[in-house]
Amino acid sequence: MLVENLDHIGIVVEDIDQAIKFYQNTFGMKLIHQEIIQERGIKVAFLVGEEENETSIELLEPIDHNDMNNTVAKFLKNRGQGLHHLAVKVSDINKALEELTAKGLQLVDSAPRKGARGHLVAFVHPKSVMGVLLELVQPKEL
Amino acid sequence: MLVENLDHIGIVVEDIDQAIKFYQNTFGMKLIHQEIIQERGIKVAFLVGEEENETSIELLEPIDHNDMNNTVAKFLKNRGQGLHHLAVKVSDINKALEELTAKGLQLVDSAPRKGARGHLVAFVHPKSVMGVLLELVQPKEL
Repeated sequence: MLVENLDHIGIVVEDIDQAIKFYQNTFGMKLIHQEIIQERGIKVAFLVGEEENETSIELLEPIDHNDMNNTVAKFLKNRGQGLHHLAVKVSDINKALEELTAKGLQLVDSAPRKGARGHLVAFVHPKSVMGVLLELVQPKEL
Repeated sequence: MLVENLDHIGIVVEDIDQAIKFYQNTFGMKLIHQEIIQERGIKVAFLVGEEENETSIELLEPIDHNDMNNTVAKFLKNRGQGLHHLAVKVSDINKALEELTAKGLQLVDSAPRKGARGHLVAFVHPKSVMGVLLELVQPKEL
């Protein structure tokens, strides 16, 4: 499997509107996309720096903070706000999942599903990535 | 303050040599720099994807896992391996620290110090960044 680059770093927050304003006003970052993903029960927002290179931050807030079946709400309750996952860009997510399975890595998603921005995504379990929740992203346009 | 882009994402690991091999062999990432920072009691390694955009991952391992005065050793003991900090690139770190102080953010380093790769760095406390330990990086070449 080849990681093309880092796609984004996921950060769980208590209040996404407040967090967007904070990253804009305090660090001069630019909001490039905002979305409510009903199937996953989360609100997300992507921000980049001045140079707009491909790596962004993704702010995540659960729609229902009390839904303990939602992994983001659970994370927020158990660990509080903070760094949540690392997402890497791959050109062929199906091939990547096959390779990782063959290597014995534990997947959260055995098949890709539609994530934010219409991209195909799949998560790899932190147990198999030295404590890092890893998201594979195959951009829609590829 | 203006974030130019994301410089790197810091990941604490138990065994840096094993982790470097894992990221190389499993994800096809490339090692671009490795260093032992005696003053901070850590070993670090930077890796990037195929496209080599500016955003890298930084693996960190404490030199002495039992030194509880070392924040990385303490993190490893208390939270285990995983995502540790987010580093953003700025063009003028002194000005950035002044601005953040004026805005009331709590700094870990009130003045920049020499970090990995000879860059000037300073950390901002996670209490002031919604749970994210934030590192400012002013690259040496600027």
